[in-house]
Amino acid sequence: MNRTVIRGGLVVTAAEEMHADVLIEGEKVVALAAYGSAAAESWTAEKVLDARGLYVIPGGVDAHTHMELPFGGTFASDTFETGTRAAAWGGTTTIVDFAVQSVGSSLREGLDAWHEKAQGNCAIDYGFHMILADVTEHSLKEMDLLVAEGVTSFKLFMAYPGVFYSDDGKILRAMQRGAGNGGLIMMHAENGIAIDVLVEQALAAGRTDPRHHGEVRREILEAEATHRAVKLAQVAGAPLYVVHVSAASAVDELAAARRQGLDVFGETCPQYLFLSTDNLAEPGFEGAKYVCSTPLRPREHQDALWRALRTGDLQVVSTDHCPFCFAGQKELGRGDFSKIPNGLPGVENRMDLLHQAVVEGRISRRRWIEIACAAPARMFGLYPRKGTIAPGADADVVLYDPTVRQTLSAATHHMNVDYSAYEGKEITGKVRTVLSRGTVVIEADAYLGRAGHGRFQPRATCQYLA
Amino acid sequence: MNRTVIRGGLVVTAAEEMHADVLIEGEKVVALAAYGSAAAESWTAEKVLDARGLYVIPGGVDAHTHMELPFGGTFASDTFETGTRAAAWGGTTTIVDFAVQSVGSSLREGLDAWHEKAQGNCAIDYGFHMILADVTEHSLKEMDLLVAEGVTSFKLFMAYPGVFYSDDGKILRAMQRGAGNGGLIMMHAENGIAIDVLVEQALAAGRTDPRHHGEVRREILEAEATHRAVKLAQVAGAPLYVVHVSAASAVDELAAARRQGLDVFGETCPQYLFLSTDNLAEPGFEGAKYVCSTPLRPREHQDALWRALRTGDLQVVSTDHCPFCFAGQKELGRGDFSKIPNGLPGVENRMDLLHQAVVEGRISRRRWIEIACAAPARMFGLYPRKGTIAPGADADVVLYDPTVRQTLSAATHHMNVDYSAYEGKEITGKVRTVLSRGTVVIEADAYLGRAGHGRFQPRATCQYLA
Amino acid sequence: MNRTVIRGGLVVTAAEEMHADVLIEGEKVVALAAYGSAAAESWTAEKVLDARGLYVIPGGVDAHTHMELPFGGTFASDTFETGTRAAAWGGTTTIVDFAVQSVGSSLREGLDAWHEKAQGNCAIDYGFHMILADVTEHSLKEMDLLVAEGVTSFKLFMAYPGVFYSDDGKILRAMQRGAGNGGLIMMHAENGIAIDVLVEQALAAGRTDPRHHGEVRREILEAEATHRAVKLAQVAGAPLYVVHVSAASAVDELAAARRQGLDVFGETCPQYLFLSTDNLAEPGFEGAKYVCSTPLRPREHQDALWRALRTGDLQVVSTDHCPFCFAGQKELGRGDFSKIPNGLPGVENRMDLLHQAVVEGRISRRRWIEIACAAPARMFGLYPRKGTIAPGADADVVLYDPTVRQTLSAATHHMNVDYSAYEGKEITGKVRTVLSRGTVVIEADAYLGRAGHGRFQPRATCQYLA
Amino acid sequence: MNRTVIRGGLVVTAAEEMHADVLIEGEKVVALAAYGSAAAESWTAEKVLDARGLYVIPGGVDAHTHMELPFGGTFASDTFETGTRAAAWGGTTTIVDFAVQSVGSSLREGLDAWHEKAQGNCAIDYGFHMILADVTEHSLKEMDLLVAEGVTSFKLFMAYPGVFYSDDGKILRAMQRGAGNGGLIMMHAENGIAIDVLVEQALAAGRTDPRHHGEVRREILEAEATHRAVKLAQVAGAPLYVVHVSAASAVDELAAARRQGLDVFGETCPQYLFLSTDNLAEPGFEGAKYVCSTPLRPREHQDALWRALRTGDLQVVSTDHCPFCFAGQKELGRGDFSKIPNGLPGVENRMDLLHQAVVEGRISRRRWIEIACAAPARMFGLYPRKGTIAPGADADVVLYDPTVRQTLSAATHHMNVDYSAYEGKEITGKVRTVLSRGTVVIEADAYLGRAGHGRFQPRATCQYLA
Repeated sequence: MNRTVIRGGLVVTAAEEMHADVLIEGEKVVALAAYGSAAAESWTAEKVLDARGLYVIPGGVDAHTHMELPFGGTFASDTFETGTRAAAWGGTTTIVDFAVQSVGSSLREGLDAWHEKAQGNCAIDYGFHMILADVTEHSLKEMDLLVAEGVTSFKLFMAYPGVFYSDDGKILRAMQRGAGNGGLIMMHAENGIAIDVLVEQALAAGRTDPRHHGEVRREILEAEATHRAVKLAQVAGAPLYVVHVSAASAVDELAAARRQGLDVFGETCPQYLFLSTDNLAEPGFEGAKYVCSTPLRPREHQDALWRALRTGDLQVVSTDHCPFCFAGQKELGRGDFSKIPNGLPGVENRMDLLHQAVVEGRISRRRWIEIACAAPARMFGLYPRKGTIAPGADADVVLYDPTVRQTLSAATHHMNVDYSAYEGKEITGKVRTVLSRGTVVIEADAYLGRAGHGRFQPRATCQYLA
Repeated sequence: MNRTVIRGGLVVTAAEEMHADVLIEGEKVVALAAYGSAAAESWTAEKVLDARGLYVIPGGVDAHTHMELPFGGTFASDTFETGTRAAAWGGTTTIVDFAVQSVGSSLREGLDAWHEKAQGNCAIDYGFHMILADVTEHSLKEMDLLVAEGVTSFKLFMAYPGVFYSDDGKILRAMQRGAGNGGLIMMHAENGIAIDVLVEQALAAGRTDPRHHGEVRREILEAEATHRAVKLAQVAGAPLYVVHVSAASAVDELAAARRQGLDVFGETCPQYLFLSTDNLAEPGFEGAKYVCSTPLRPREHQDALWRALRTGDLQVVSTDHCPFCFAGQKELGRGDFSKIPNGLPGVENRMDLLHQAVVEGRISRRRWIEIACAAPARMFGLYPRKGTIAPGADADVVLYDPTVRQTLSAATHHMNVDYSAYEGKEITGKVRTVLSRGTVVIEADAYLGRAGHGRFQPRATCQYLA
Repeated sequence: MNRTVIRGGLVVTAAEEMHADVLIEGEKVVALAAYGSAAAESWTAEKVLDARGLYVIPGGVDAHTHMELPFGGTFASDTFETGTRAAAWGGTTTIVDFAVQSVGSSLREGLDAWHEKAQGNCAIDYGFHMILADVTEHSLKEMDLLVAEGVTSFKLFMAYPGVFYSDDGKILRAMQRGAGNGGLIMMHAENGIAIDVLVEQALAAGRTDPRHHGEVRREILEAEATHRAVKLAQVAGAPLYVVHVSAASAVDELAAARRQGLDVFGETCPQYLFLSTDNLAEPGFEGAKYVCSTPLRPREHQDALWRALRTGDLQVVSTDHCPFCFAGQKELGRGDFSKIPNGLPGVENRMDLLHQAVVEGRISRRRWIEIACAAPARMFGLYPRKGTIAPGADADVVLYDPTVRQTLSAATHHMNVDYSAYEGKEITGKVRTVLSRGTVVIEADAYLGRAGHGRFQPRATCQYLA
Repeated sequence: MNRTVIRGGLVVTAAEEMHADVLIEGEKVVALAAYGSAAAESWTAEKVLDARGLYVIPGGVDAHTHMELPFGGTFASDTFETGTRAAAWGGTTTIVDFAVQSVGSSLREGLDAWHEKAQGNCAIDYGFHMILADVTEHSLKEMDLLVAEGVTSFKLFMAYPGVFYSDDGKILRAMQRGAGNGGLIMMHAENGIAIDVLVEQALAAGRTDPRHHGEVRREILEAEATHRAVKLAQVAGAPLYVVHVSAASAVDELAAARRQGLDVFGETCPQYLFLSTDNLAEPGFEGAKYVCSTPLRPREHQDALWRALRTGDLQVVSTDHCPFCFAGQKELGRGDFSKIPNGLPGVENRMDLLHQAVVEGRISRRRWIEIACAAPARMFGLYPRKGTIAPGADADVVLYDPTVRQTLSAATHHMNVDYSAYEGKEITGKVRTVLSRGTVVIEADAYLGRAGHGRFQPRATCQYLA
């Protein structure tokens, strides 16, 4: 079997920092040995990667992406091919994307459609969550089947009435079903019914600029929906995962639920940690680049999010990668912020941005790996195959240079979108080499992978429970 | 160098569960390899331990013991020799004991005295915290020296006026000093000034039985002191570690502080998780066996403690091992509960009792290792030397049989005390083999170690910060 | 002008207890004078009421009644004539009833219909709230007109989908309108969408008894809706009044909102203070007598409600009087609890039951008058005309005997309903004499009033704000 | 008997606003009658006061003054004669001052000494609280006697070690005694032990200016002490009244305790509502004028205090009047803020400043009277003799002009102190006429009273408990 040794790096996982060599056989990590030990020295391999001065970390797991998502009459601009390639460039080796049920259709139809989009096109491994847009007796039963196929999480929306929105009764039914079959309910928690009133009023009053997107989607209405989702989950006896938490008061709701002992989890995204309503208010129509939902919040919310990442009240940082080009796509909303497609590019930037937080002292190196690799893997049933470096794990490994400086820019990124949300931002740290199941896909600033290398990953149920 | 291989076990650390073989060279773990892999098969060693069907876990780290402690005119009945041997029997390979400053003496004198007690006598490795009983300009300066020597934590008492008690001003000064030199303040948080009033009133009213010990040491007064310690730490800009948390409302205070982002940590002990005021109320003078401070609480507090161990609001389970024989020692308090020496035996039982919690579904296997090994090691600057199994770590390793049943009893335990706090309790799981720095000290129900094998461990400062 | 003097009683208002004589001229109280003072002695009057040994209190203000309410295919069994007469017997001299807008109709039509039911039939004064069942552009505009006519409060429902239910967007719009025109939004706070799922599941599982009414209407879902209503009010910048609060956790939500400085108010009812799920579980179909929404809660909630009445987190006790006979009405729900008409009789019992709480030491005499008379009057813009005894107030006065004992029973009550929710309950205290605007309507155990004496009371906007 | 009629004013009490005439016979209010009613018109009197356009309000009750207090080697500059005269000028007709027990002396000695200071010298009525500086078996027994004599409240200090300070054990004993005899414990809640460490460190570091007084007396240490006092009261089963609350976080502690149903009360003072650390930081040594303890807080605390006054989490506004002249007294602390006598003048300004809050919309007129008159009277057992206008009450009445403007200044005030804490502040509203027990003491900008008119008022126990 093909053997690779990674020599001399600092292996960093969610729990350990070790000066250790890593031995890969075929697609798996098979051994770690102390650097310089006789055991390590005895290893021979076809390929030896010199990791001196580098971190050796698990490949990133991005549990929230939307490749090719149809939204507002257009499509997210990254295909599975371009998007997973960009992910690899950024040190992410697994994504979990969202298959979409259309209202009136079955989960099966939606899932099959998404399998078709992804299969044969991905540079790295991928799994699927299922968006449950139409809770019916039939779709509730289908949930059981999907769990059996390794699609073990289901997203519901308290926002977007008329599109993805489920009312509290449908949410309760889906949660009850999930409590039975192990499917984890993921929630977009914003009171969309109330927000749509404010949207209509804002537009009627001529408040049409992108910054009004942030103003009408009130923080209170994110916190309220989060509270309500927690309570419905409590009634159902089900765990809950809240996606893209952006508001300090929503974090408070999650923390309060956790203090009560409820199995409530939360994810935030780099855009909420690094961007703010200042960006939404950029002059011209520039703010449109930063339109996503939940929206960016005033700068002071960032501290609350970082604190929650330190205390464990938030567990995961995903990207909610959902890119739309400024030209032709974001521009659909000129004169009406409600028509701006919601979403930001980010799948390539996540590992770097979170490392920057390490550099700035916000989180430890181990916590970086935990929130970006181990926790999402555990949350969505991929551990220990993904998310760590240990004997038996998939050889999804990144050699990361913690000292080199780089500037984020659309000019250099690999995502299929015409702007960067972090244009010009200088950060320290950069991916050097990326292995996906033992295969080198990024090395020496070159993409060596191929569409179709990535495989669908059936997932176990949530591993955060018990 | 001497080599040992542990084959075929399930290696469990705070973060991972791996079917992996472990290679030890001399005193260190040097490699892990997937069970059955070519890498693992290639290892040869002087000693091969068959771990099939067993857990391979890091040796326990008990961060709170009191060997030979003078208290109330007598001494804790375990010496460093008997106590560390019992620890080894129970799968604990490191203790951090408390050196005591006497009022009017220096820290140096106290520390030297404790070094003398321990040196040459310990079966396993040990470190020291320092009890700071007399906060003066001189002792504050000595703190810096002790930190430099690897004694990096200092315990203060809000209880025991006239003995160990420090007033809020002294506490504040010590915290300020610790904020500067990295020394972590550990707090016995009970309002001893108020409690002593209630003790006096209880005795005057003829309420002299052991159960009154639990009644006068009111839960409110533990929570109050915990709150106050947090606030003083906040004023000082210092982290805080609260020892032997027993009350649900004290946990609430810690959780609230952590939500604010304060570096506040808490430890509980097996006696608070498994025993209750029901034991204190046992007929005859039996309740005296369970007299310790903070006291046992009503049974309903246990759930709050377990929940906090799950959510991370409590980080560590230590024993506060401080045994006194029923005959001759506990009996000093017949007719006056305030004269019962405070303390319970437990250093031998901790790993087993916490595994029982795994069996009962209260915590996961990984969390068992985290609260019993990894977290105390990190908290007190021993990581990754202690508390994990990874290349480079000390080879403090336990082979643990998760299926065998045993009955806890003074008839079979190895602690030097004439009763067990858990007499007759049936549990599942038992230590099979214990290695301390690569040396087998327990094997096949025999103690193979020796007094003096254990070495003093200078400790780094708290590794939970950042 | 006709003069009445009430001599020798203890005048009790929300703020004062005075041994004072009360002078009434025509429909108004014009003076109070210290008992035995020259000023008091100098008064002459056509009618002198001897109040020695009695309390002289303001007539009760019951801010929540439903006379002749159509519900579930039947009608509440008290007409305005029978219901207001019963109110007078019980010492209540003002009710505020609910006019109902039907879906598809205007507020005007609903209000006119209710004026017609009431006019010429009432024994005591009355006002109207308006149930806003159909929030439209038109009905929002009508709100302004109603406020101008003295109908200054509007009730919305988060329960009863398909009947009275408004979604969060409609609620938000109504609150915004109220913030502008001064109309106070009253909320039935239960998550009816989720509850209906649980109802359906309970019935499908054969759980059809009255006690299941209490089980499916989960406490969590009252608290959740209360929280949501608060947050929507915060978004709207509007005050909020939550009706019939029954759950301890709902009280917590109100208290938390008030701590933030929000103008949030709450009412509870005697049934939640004196009855519990024990009643709902009475054998046979007896539990049906206690079916109302929000439902009765387990007994331990009562303490939380009383505490909130003491601390001021609840301001008002109303009855939600909505009687249905057991025979022929409650029986509609045999075999299906969801078909039991929701509601209890109580308008006659409120003043007595709350006095019983004074006797039992739960509240002070002044707080009795505050929650039963002054606070509802202030809350709904009737103060100081109603709710107090002071120069200038309407002469709605009750002479109350605090020492006589009575037994509550359907055999003796005057409400038009075939059972009492408090059958056989022995209490201390009883109404002796009742004046409505200076006219004696109850005296010497006889009803001296007449249908049509009672007049519609246009109300100012909420007087709790400022 | 001498009769006075006050005609045509708006009578404002804590509960009512009435256009009513007030009839006084001798020292008592005997009747109120609607303005223009036959009853009112029939009154004849020796003296008729024209109150048209004026408010007729109860005389103020200032429950916290320190006339002639010895402090830091000097004495508060107002004697009972000058201080009570100034109080009268400001519309306050009752003070409750603090008699002081010296350490080593009895309560009796302290109380007798204060009686001697006051007797024959006061312009208005007065009562005493007792400062309990030395909790011993003897002084605990004396508490019972003082309660019997109408000295029903006892102040303890958690600050000022070595002077007034009591440790938690002494506090607990005093609270237990109070729980038995009805004596209300008043608490100066600051952690003085910790503060003194910070004082010493500040002075050692050369931070000697007045503003450092505010910085070392940390908000956290007020909140901590407040929390601790609440918990000790809970252990003792006693009510608690916290004096001069200045910090938002201390208010939170009180509010939390009240939510639990504890009988915990709080007072704030005008200086905390209108002044801030900006004043303490005034250049030169001007800041010394604003040195008091608890200290002034940053401006943002004011909103929390006003909110708590609205919600009822604070019940009383007293002055803590304790004036020291700038020249010769405040100057003692030049170069050492800890030597600045602690205290501000204010007894003359309270009613006006709180009326200004009415003008500014912060509180209602009725709440003004409640916090300044009725609540302190109830809290300290003076109701309904003091604090309201009702038949039977003492005729302590103020005619207040709500429209005239005045400028506060040492040039015009009547307190015996060489500066005003509100120098130059323009406010709306002014006292016109003041009656003390029926006798006019202020009229037409002249003082008509006399030293010795004021009488000692024995007080009942706290009337807020019921």
